[in-house]
Amino acid sequence: MRAWQFTGTHQPLALNEVPEPVPGAGEVVVDIKAAGLCHSDVGVLDDEGWLSMLPVLPVTMGHEVAGVVSAIGEGVTEWSVGDRVGVCPTSSPVTPGYNRDGGFSAKYLAPAGDLVAMPDGLGFELAALGTDAGMTSYHAVMTIGGVKAGDKVAIIGLGGLGQVGARVAVVKGAEVTVAEINEDVWPLAKEIGAVEVVKSIEELAGRDFDVVIDYAGFGSTTARAVDAIRRDGTIVVVGMGVLEATINTRDVILKQARILGSNGGVKQDIADCYELFASGEVAPVTTTITFDEIPEGIERLRRGEVSGRLVARMD
Amino acid sequence: MRAWQFTGTHQPLALNEVPEPVPGAGEVVVDIKAAGLCHSDVGVLDDEGWLSMLPVLPVTMGHEVAGVVSAIGEGVTEWSVGDRVGVCPTSSPVTPGYNRDGGFSAKYLAPAGDLVAMPDGLGFELAALGTDAGMTSYHAVMTIGGVKAGDKVAIIGLGGLGQVGARVAVVKGAEVTVAEINEDVWPLAKEIGAVEVVKSIEELAGRDFDVVIDYAGFGSTTARAVDAIRRDGTIVVVGMGVLEATINTRDVILKQARILGSNGGVKQDIADCYELFASGEVAPVTTTITFDEIPEGIERLRRGEVSGRLVARMD
Repeated sequence: MRAWQFTGTHQPLALNEVPEPVPGAGEVVVDIKAAGLCHSDVGVLDDEGWLSMLPVLPVTMGHEVAGVVSAIGEGVTEWSVGDRVGVCPTSSPVTPGYNRDGGFSAKYLAPAGDLVAMPDGLGFELAALGTDAGMTSYHAVMTIGGVKAGDKVAIIGLGGLGQVGARVAVVKGAEVTVAEINEDVWPLAKEIGAVEVVKSIEELAGRDFDVVIDYAGFGSTTARAVDAIRRDGTIVVVGMGVLEATINTRDVILKQARILGSNGGVKQDIADCYELFASGEVAPVTTTITFDEIPEGIERLRRGEVSGRLVARMD
Repeated sequence: MRAWQFTGTHQPLALNEVPEPVPGAGEVVVDIKAAGLCHSDVGVLDDEGWLSMLPVLPVTMGHEVAGVVSAIGEGVTEWSVGDRVGVCPTSSPVTPGYNRDGGFSAKYLAPAGDLVAMPDGLGFELAALGTDAGMTSYHAVMTIGGVKAGDKVAIIGLGGLGQVGARVAVVKGAEVTVAEINEDVWPLAKEIGAVEVVKSIEELAGRDFDVVIDYAGFGSTTARAVDAIRRDGTIVVVGMGVLEATINTRDVILKQARILGSNGGVKQDIADCYELFASGEVAPVTTTITFDEIPEGIERLRRGEVSGRLVARMD
């Protein structure tokens, strides 16, 4: 079968012929229907800093995988051929596209424990997106942030993750304000159901938010979030725009602020996301491309031309 | 009755004759048996920055108050004359020694809702200390930090609060390591039951602590605490040694670190502290002085000569 593979930093994706996987004990083969493209794919291709996470080269890229179970290995009882599934990239030591051949191909070899069932009515594009972009944004808002109905929530950054996170918060009954420097996406904030959009978190100082989710992570955004929360309020840090934040610890103490890092997510986040996607309540913008268009899609991500999520259909 | 009063920054404490309080509706008069002296008393006397918290001068100082109920106002049903009580300084807008005459006198006028019952076997000195030093250190370890049996806990700073906090963690079944720059107090760490004492939190990097409580709060201590915790670990920031910390947000995110401010405490913290003090399991070092020795005690605090807590007996 054909696969788009990473062969080394600063090298173009290589189209290679690779053997079809055979499931070992506890493993499942998934016929890939959709695989998402992610900004981190550009990072892997362009920045040597990622190399340590890809121990064996070449490796098939693509860590957002959804498809249909086509073969099961010994001892696997919880899945059957024909099941529609997404693959959690963080639930086992196996990460598609990093330390195991990933989704930019026809078949994926998954540990059975990494799979999440797709509910009826959920398409494969959204199921693929839900495994990473969905999981990560949901995890920040719900699992770490603990957002609940009636909460006043501020979302910093309305990029790919922030769009999903903001909408999840609205659907869960929160009153959502968005801080987004790019006014081009302000109309989207309104469509999502935000009550207010501002250019900078600084404008929200003293507004007593229950929870601020920082999808931008520009240091100053995290620091200023302290001014925007109420006493005992929560700040969730997801984005890594810069890698340091200088924080006023006096205010953190006096407000009893909670600053919580959020990294990826767990299978339950994906399952919860899938329910929200299947119901239509959360409907992330996707652009569908073909298998052959994957390198061009990567290039579009590199040039910053993509607003919604790019997903490649494999069939 | 006589009272040691604050008349203005850079002025010595004044010994004034003040009228005895009469309880209004919902109020209780407490005959003061013990009142703790706190480093913040030195702050009030020496630094204009505190003035805004003392709206009416002169005001009787002393915010760690314990004694016996001697009179009750209209509508007070939960307390009786003769009850032994401590006064929570943070449960209502009334703060003894700040916006109401405090504990360096014979009687204190308390909102009934601010009182905490003293268990049998608890002396007034420890009951006084428990209302602020005890409450604040307990709140950080237990209420905010959520320390439980089996946890690996690091305590940064073995000053007045850290000593109580470290001992509470030991009694609750945690394995406690202390980071304390002053080797003179290292023997105390061992007496308290710490398994290890190091000079700096930097030496604890990579040690996977469940919880780090930063009683020092020197910015760098909070930042280095991120290196010392496990994934999903907790850092509680209590001390205000400096007012800023530059934190590696990448590590906060990757570790899903929880950085939690802790400010004062609540009545339940005092009640829990009282139980630990009454049982003898937690036994903070106190030095008892007389009413007349209060100004000299303040001077000793100013000169940094006090290791345990200074408490003035009023009888």
